[in-house]
Amino acid sequence: LRIGLPEVIYAEGKTPGQVADIFSRMAEAGSDVLATRVSTEAVTAIQLAVPGTVHYEIARIVALRQALPLNEDEWPCIAVLCAGTSDLPIAEEAAVTAEHFGVRVLRLYDVGVAGVHRLLAVREQLVQADAVIVCAGMEGALPSVVGGLVGVPVIAVPTSVGYGASFGGVTALLGMLNSCSPNVSVVNIDNGFGAAYTATLIARAKRR
Amino acid sequence: LRIGLPEVIYAEGKTPGQVADIFSRMAEAGSDVLATRVSTEAVTAIQLAVPGTVHYEIARIVALRQALPLNEDEWPCIAVLCAGTSDLPIAEEAAVTAEHFGVRVLRLYDVGVAGVHRLLAVREQLVQADAVIVCAGMEGALPSVVGGLVGVPVIAVPTSVGYGASFGGVTALLGMLNSCSPNVSVVNIDNGFGAAYTATLIARAKRR
Amino acid sequence: LRIGLPEVIYAEGKTPGQVADIFSRMAEAGSDVLATRVSTEAVTAIQLAVPGTVHYEIARIVALRQALPLNEDEWPCIAVLCAGTSDLPIAEEAAVTAEHFGVRVLRLYDVGVAGVHRLLAVREQLVQADAVIVCAGMEGALPSVVGGLVGVPVIAVPTSVGYGASFGGVTALLGMLNSCSPNVSVVNIDNGFGAAYTATLIARAKRR
Amino acid sequence: LRIGLPEVIYAEGKTPGQVADIFSRMAEAGSDVLATRVSTEAVTAIQLAVPGTVHYEIARIVALRQALPLNEDEWPCIAVLCAGTSDLPIAEEAAVTAEHFGVRVLRLYDVGVAGVHRLLAVREQLVQADAVIVCAGMEGALPSVVGGLVGVPVIAVPTSVGYGASFGGVTALLGMLNSCSPNVSVVNIDNGFGAAYTATLIARAKRR
Amino acid sequence: LRIGLPEVIYAEGKTPGQVADIFSRMAEAGSDVLATRVSTEAVTAIQLAVPGTVHYEIARIVALRQALPLNEDEWPCIAVLCAGTSDLPIAEEAAVTAEHFGVRVLRLYDVGVAGVHRLLAVREQLVQADAVIVCAGMEGALPSVVGGLVGVPVIAVPTSVGYGASFGGVTALLGMLNSCSPNVSVVNIDNGFGAAYTATLIARAKRR
Amino acid sequence: LRIGLPEVIYAEGKTPGQVADIFSRMAEAGSDVLATRVSTEAVTAIQLAVPGTVHYEIARIVALRQALPLNEDEWPCIAVLCAGTSDLPIAEEAAVTAEHFGVRVLRLYDVGVAGVHRLLAVREQLVQADAVIVCAGMEGALPSVVGGLVGVPVIAVPTSVGYGASFGGVTALLGMLNSCSPNVSVVNIDNGFGAAYTATLIARAKRR
Amino acid sequence: LRIGLPEVIYAEGKTPGQVADIFSRMAEAGSDVLATRVSTEAVTAIQLAVPGTVHYEIARIVALRQALPLNEDEWPCIAVLCAGTSDLPIAEEAAVTAEHFGVRVLRLYDVGVAGVHRLLAVREQLVQADAVIVCAGMEGALPSVVGGLVGVPVIAVPTSVGYGASFGGVTALLGMLNSCSPNVSVVNIDNGFGAAYTATLIARAKRR
Amino acid sequence: LRIGLPEVIYAEGKTPGQVADIFSRMAEAGSDVLATRVSTEAVTAIQLAVPGTVHYEIARIVALRQALPLNEDEWPCIAVLCAGTSDLPIAEEAAVTAEHFGVRVLRLYDVGVAGVHRLLAVREQLVQADAVIVCAGMEGALPSVVGGLVGVPVIAVPTSVGYGASFGGVTALLGMLNSCSPNVSVVNIDNGFGAAYTATLIARAKRR
Ligand SMILES: Nc1ncnc2c1ncn2[C@@H]1O[C@H](COP(=O)(O)O)[C@@H](O)[C@H]1O
Ligand SMILES: Nc1ncnc2c1ncn2[C@@H]1O[C@H](COP(=O)(O)O)[C@@H](O)[C@H]1O
Ligand SMILES: Nc1ncnc2c1ncn2[C@@H]1O[C@H](COP(=O)(O)O)[C@@H](O)[C@H]1O
Ligand SMILES: Nc1ncnc2c1ncn2[C@@H]1O[C@H](COP(=O)(O)O)[C@@H](O)[C@H]1O
Ligand SMILES: [Mg+2]
Ligand SMILES: [Mg+2]
Ligand SMILES: [Mg+2]
Ligand SMILES: [Mg+2]
Ligand SMILES: [Mg+2]
Ligand SMILES: [Mg+2]
Ligand SMILES: [Mg+2]
Ligand SMILES: [Mg+2]
Repeated sequence: LRIGLPEVIYAEGKTPGQVADIFSRMAEAGSDVLATRVSTEAVTAIQLAVPGTVHYEIARIVALRQALPLNEDEWPCIAVLCAGTSDLPIAEEAAVTAEHFGVRVLRLYDVGVAGVHRLLAVREQLVQADAVIVCAGMEGALPSVVGGLVGVPVIAVPTSVGYGASFGGVTALLGMLNSCSPNVSVVNIDNGFGAAYTATLIARAKRR
Repeated sequence: LRIGLPEVIYAEGKTPGQVADIFSRMAEAGSDVLATRVSTEAVTAIQLAVPGTVHYEIARIVALRQALPLNEDEWPCIAVLCAGTSDLPIAEEAAVTAEHFGVRVLRLYDVGVAGVHRLLAVREQLVQADAVIVCAGMEGALPSVVGGLVGVPVIAVPTSVGYGASFGGVTALLGMLNSCSPNVSVVNIDNGFGAAYTATLIARAKRR
Repeated sequence: LRIGLPEVIYAEGKTPGQVADIFSRMAEAGSDVLATRVSTEAVTAIQLAVPGTVHYEIARIVALRQALPLNEDEWPCIAVLCAGTSDLPIAEEAAVTAEHFGVRVLRLYDVGVAGVHRLLAVREQLVQADAVIVCAGMEGALPSVVGGLVGVPVIAVPTSVGYGASFGGVTALLGMLNSCSPNVSVVNIDNGFGAAYTATLIARAKRR
Repeated sequence: LRIGLPEVIYAEGKTPGQVADIFSRMAEAGSDVLATRVSTEAVTAIQLAVPGTVHYEIARIVALRQALPLNEDEWPCIAVLCAGTSDLPIAEEAAVTAEHFGVRVLRLYDVGVAGVHRLLAVREQLVQADAVIVCAGMEGALPSVVGGLVGVPVIAVPTSVGYGASFGGVTALLGMLNSCSPNVSVVNIDNGFGAAYTATLIARAKRR
Repeated sequence: LRIGLPEVIYAEGKTPGQVADIFSRMAEAGSDVLATRVSTEAVTAIQLAVPGTVHYEIARIVALRQALPLNEDEWPCIAVLCAGTSDLPIAEEAAVTAEHFGVRVLRLYDVGVAGVHRLLAVREQLVQADAVIVCAGMEGALPSVVGGLVGVPVIAVPTSVGYGASFGGVTALLGMLNSCSPNVSVVNIDNGFGAAYTATLIARAKRR
Repeated sequence: LRIGLPEVIYAEGKTPGQVADIFSRMAEAGSDVLATRVSTEAVTAIQLAVPGTVHYEIARIVALRQALPLNEDEWPCIAVLCAGTSDLPIAEEAAVTAEHFGVRVLRLYDVGVAGVHRLLAVREQLVQADAVIVCAGMEGALPSVVGGLVGVPVIAVPTSVGYGASFGGVTALLGMLNSCSPNVSVVNIDNGFGAAYTATLIARAKRR
Repeated sequence: LRIGLPEVIYAEGKTPGQVADIFSRMAEAGSDVLATRVSTEAVTAIQLAVPGTVHYEIARIVALRQALPLNEDEWPCIAVLCAGTSDLPIAEEAAVTAEHFGVRVLRLYDVGVAGVHRLLAVREQLVQADAVIVCAGMEGALPSVVGGLVGVPVIAVPTSVGYGASFGGVTALLGMLNSCSPNVSVVNIDNGFGAAYTATLIARAKRR
Repeated sequence: LRIGLPEVIYAEGKTPGQVADIFSRMAEAGSDVLATRVSTEAVTAIQLAVPGTVHYEIARIVALRQALPLNEDEWPCIAVLCAGTSDLPIAEEAAVTAEHFGVRVLRLYDVGVAGVHRLLAVREQLVQADAVIVCAGMEGALPSVVGGLVGVPVIAVPTSVGYGASFGGVTALLGMLNSCSPNVSVVNIDNGFGAAYTATLIARAKRR
């Protein structure tokens, strides 16, 4: 991308062949490449076409790393939080994306609001992050609580986890938009990629 | 009411004259009487018609106590929580209603989720309650956090406090219905009265 | 749970293997265990992993009882109501959950509002309950009628039963939130489990 | 109208002068005339322009009767039901309209679902009607219960009475559309006039 | 039913076995029986269990006629209208139901509003009906035009036909509720059965 | 504008002073000027600042004509339709705008769908138009019927006229978007200006 | 159609047999024929029944051209724009339809708003069109930008492309209805056909 | 605040007296203080109570600066964009808040998407910003276009500007959430304050 980040392919709605073609072309140009929302068939098609890719199953991502330097210690750092196993695909989409954009990621994954002490127990890790991504479905309350604990931007990702009046993530989305913590901003439902993109820009600003 | 609770008048949409008339009739029958959502004009009309009433300004309630015994010490106890000054009218509607139904009320009123330590600071008081009412607007996240801290039913009252995508309390309502704490049930937006009614039935069960 | 209730697993969105693993671990710790929303595959996985479980097919629950004493006569009692066969899975989720939490359950299952005399015919049973759960889809009118017949809390569960403008339970949910009976509070669409949790807390309060 | 009914003016959104002009013109042509949703100013304007009109204050109707014969005994009969004082303007819009269309009206006005015995107490009157209009706000449950008690069409009128999640009558409207009584059909929120129009056509069919 | 109409089974959400059982039991009691929304499997199950039934494929109805007398000439008459082939299942659900309730049905099935002359061409048939059912999807405009052409009640049935902003019938439903023809009332989306039930009650009133 | 049309000021949300200032500036530059949605105060402010303007009261427009030639006979022609007096402000906003953009306008203003013969009576005028604007509130059915009668584009303008389930024009908007006439396209609720703009571009194409 | 355009069949919701039958009948009558939204099975059925048809796979259209003259050079011209591969089916539905209606089509298909220079790069082609169709999903912003670059009508087609809060095209639809470019009008979600129909009428007006 | 930012009072829903009291108390403690959404009465009350405050009329903010150092040259820098006069109150709420949080603000206020060249004309200023705030009503398309032009986070603020289907800012909100530019995140409708808070945290990170 225009700011030195890897090329990204949004695989949903593309055929496996189309995804593999675009991936090949970008790889040959020497870029780092990331394909999100890949189906099993698309994974196979990419792997046949391009050697050296890594497949992140839960995150539904295939990535190729050939350009970005890998000196992890100097990297900025973000935290990715969620409440439990159902939010994992989105949290991992965010975490894997950020790592491939050159950011260190603290995964804090069992910290729902109904057991607030688990969140308080990880507070020391949390405050080291330069930006925080919070993924939550159902009532979407976690970003507000986290927002009150940190002094950096919180990117909230509503997930489509839930049933009944969760309306496929709309309830979580609305809750996050109405957060009483002023450091919270929000991306689309299940958009772990977008949250990682913004969090990366924030975190990298510190070291530029 | 059919279960030994005072008579209640919902004053909204009635003329001051109508409210005062109904209030008088009930008072003469010897009942305790509660009028909610009273306008300034209705307050005056009641006070002219019935001596001995008490006006609770923030709660918008006028009450008459003549039947229920007043031995507060043996009473059951509930807690009413909210985050700040904007939720006060609803929290007070709940608290005053419960008190007039013969319940002791712990008011815990400055405990929003963006500053979770203030909530943890009152935890010892909270766990004494036989039922808990939580009033919250905006993202409506407070009941979930409270639900995780207590072992009694939590009645959540979404308030119409907020702007933009709070949609007059709908966001808070949806958040509460999707609470990940299983001891949370919900009443209509701004329905402090209904929450107090149910909380009273729960709390009084213990002493019957 | 923190209040002496069995451990509960929400199986939806977990693989059969994950569900069986969590179930085993809890069973080994000596707890009573309840898994709700179990698929056929998850049932088999649990049964292979843990001996002595009971499968409630309509309720989609697998349960293990090893800790809670079973002296039914002293138990508190709740009623679970619904209108017909389509609401049964949710009504049974509520009833089986409550029974495993140590509560006696009166099932009153053919009492829709379009034939109000069937409801009146069971009124004597109804008034024995310490809390009442009412499951209803379509217009969701049953909790209001029931609320007028009893002096205890009514927990209303909107069900996703219906078509067209029932919107997957939203119409029933809205109707219940606007109930003109003040003892009605509401949980999420199809949340029989949550209703049973709250009803259990209410009913058990009386005997503590 | 094309079927021998009086001329009708919907006054909302017209100036008092416009309303009075149209009323005059129709009156001079010898028709019976009905103006609904009249403001105080429009009432005065009509009364100055046309002698012999009757003003129904609660129904917000001004009517002139000069054509239709008045032999009430042979008339068909409908019932108009509602739960309480807030639905009165709509119930009266329906009742007055029907009377001016030549129909006898049984007003049954204190019969909400939270006290179902009051409804059962008027059942004998109810079953005499050739069509039934039921006006209800909040959860809109009354038409379903009434529909189960009669063998004639029930026209349900959702009213905009309520607050919070009643959404200006939408909740009542949705509830009525999902009625489990198959003899229920529905008109627009607060449309007492339309309900009376259809009920009149039904009731008059019997005597044609 | 309580008013001399056949027994009706709503087959959706019941197993073929359950549907056949209920059908058998009703048939043995001597009633006419109607099962709506029958799957292919339920049709077979009924046919195996009960001789003499008729299967209406487009209407998804299985019916048994053994009680109601069949003197068609004296019967009242309704019209069922729709715009084209996609609305046929609902129009036929209404038509077949009404016929089994003892009503003569005029089917007027190719009369959409975008070609208003086709509707005007059938006007003479239309005005013979004692009640009119209009099924329409998409913009749902047909009932308003029909309502202006007849002097009897119009029962509007929104259908789930359409795409995009038709929202599964919601647009048609809203259009019908706002009809500027005052003789229009509305039932749930795709509820051909309910429309036929009400239209039957209206049409039969004339001959009672 | 970039295509030889007069300058336009949208006055809503601007102070009278701001509106008059912008108007003056444009007038001095020699342009034709149109201000829409003008309040009474803004009208006065413009009239004081700029001589020679015309105020169209129903359309809420103030216009200045100094540049565009006025040879009406060669002009293209559009038709503007609506059902009655409540849609007049929007229909006139469209008509006056189009006239000031150099288009001849046929006003056909009493042609609602509930009396389809009035529409058919003006059909000969209708088919002369190069484009047709149809303004309608409530069920918004008029554009579909008109679309079937003409062979030119129909621009549909939903109006906020109606009550209850008309939702401030949303029902009309949805109906129009689902029109079964393929020559219908739609603009925002009450946007008579935008409809006139597009209709003008269409009509003028013929003579360019 | 009534204005010299080919006959059109909307194949969705019709069986392959029905589609092929209608297609045959029209073809035999000598018309040009277009079938949109054809399934693979319907394509085969048409091809077996009618020789000489063309199948446009991405557009899901089968067309027969036998009547319309083919002198492309004198034809009017429209442009069809979209942002990327996901909008192609709708853009091609519009383009193929317009071509079969006798219009020349400029396809400008890689011009999303997040890379506005790609759009500016095709501006010279764009300004040659007599009407412009813009297909866009997600935020639906492209029509506003395009509307500011051209002096002809822009027909905006919201597509159902997107996820989460795109709500199947509703977000794009709403954005387009609120376009700040006054030359934008809108058709239903995914209605490429309707857009082409209106654009054809506009473009052909110039040469008539 | 916990991160060295001034104290903030949200004045909406507080009485002038309450606002002035809180302001005084904070001022006496030596903090910088900001009150947003102040009414005219609250401004006067603050000015009487606290000397040295500044009133920003369009932004509806009263501010006191006594703690934060004022060395503007070393400050980080953000840009605030909007399309026109109606978005000014929100844009200024953002700009004034950020300035009082110690950030330099580039105001780029006449750059709507319907005239994209005005935006391109300010591109050089735009790319200097460390974070960008974009306020937009109606279709909310501006953040997507801006997002494609810069390599820093874009905070999008939907404004309640518009009418009809703009739904008080909901359309703009949805459009922004679906932005195809991955560096866009969103805050609540009209929440200029929250956008400034997050943008400040981002911009200040660079210089810490
Ligand atoms: N999971 C995702 N969610 C939303 N946007 C994405 C996602 N993955 C990639 N994108 C965006 O989609 C663009 C690629 O889209 P495309 O050209 O259709 O492959 C990238 O530049 C990203 O901005
Ligand atoms: N297609 C239908 N749509 C709505 N309600 C129906 C339909 N068919 C039958 N019913 C109603 O469903 C009732 C039977 O429901 P059940 O007892 O569940 O079989 C009948 O008495 C009818 O009132
Ligand atoms: N009634 C109206 N509805 C919608 N847009 C309008 C209206 N009147 C004027 N406009 C548009 O608003 C623009 C002027 O906006 P402004 O610069 O804010 O005065 C004009 O160029 C028109 O495109
Ligand atoms: N315009 C605004 N919109 C949203 N939140 C605000 C605004 N102004 C201030 N706030 C927040 O409101 C808090 C103060 O609320 P309060 O204690 O009620 O005065 C501050 O800490 C801010 O986070
Ligand atoms: Mg914020
Ligand atoms: Mg719960
Ligand atoms: Mg209640
Ligand atoms: Mg019905
Ligand atoms: Mg009507
Ligand atoms: Mg169309
Ligand atoms: Mg426009
Ligand atoms: Mg994004």
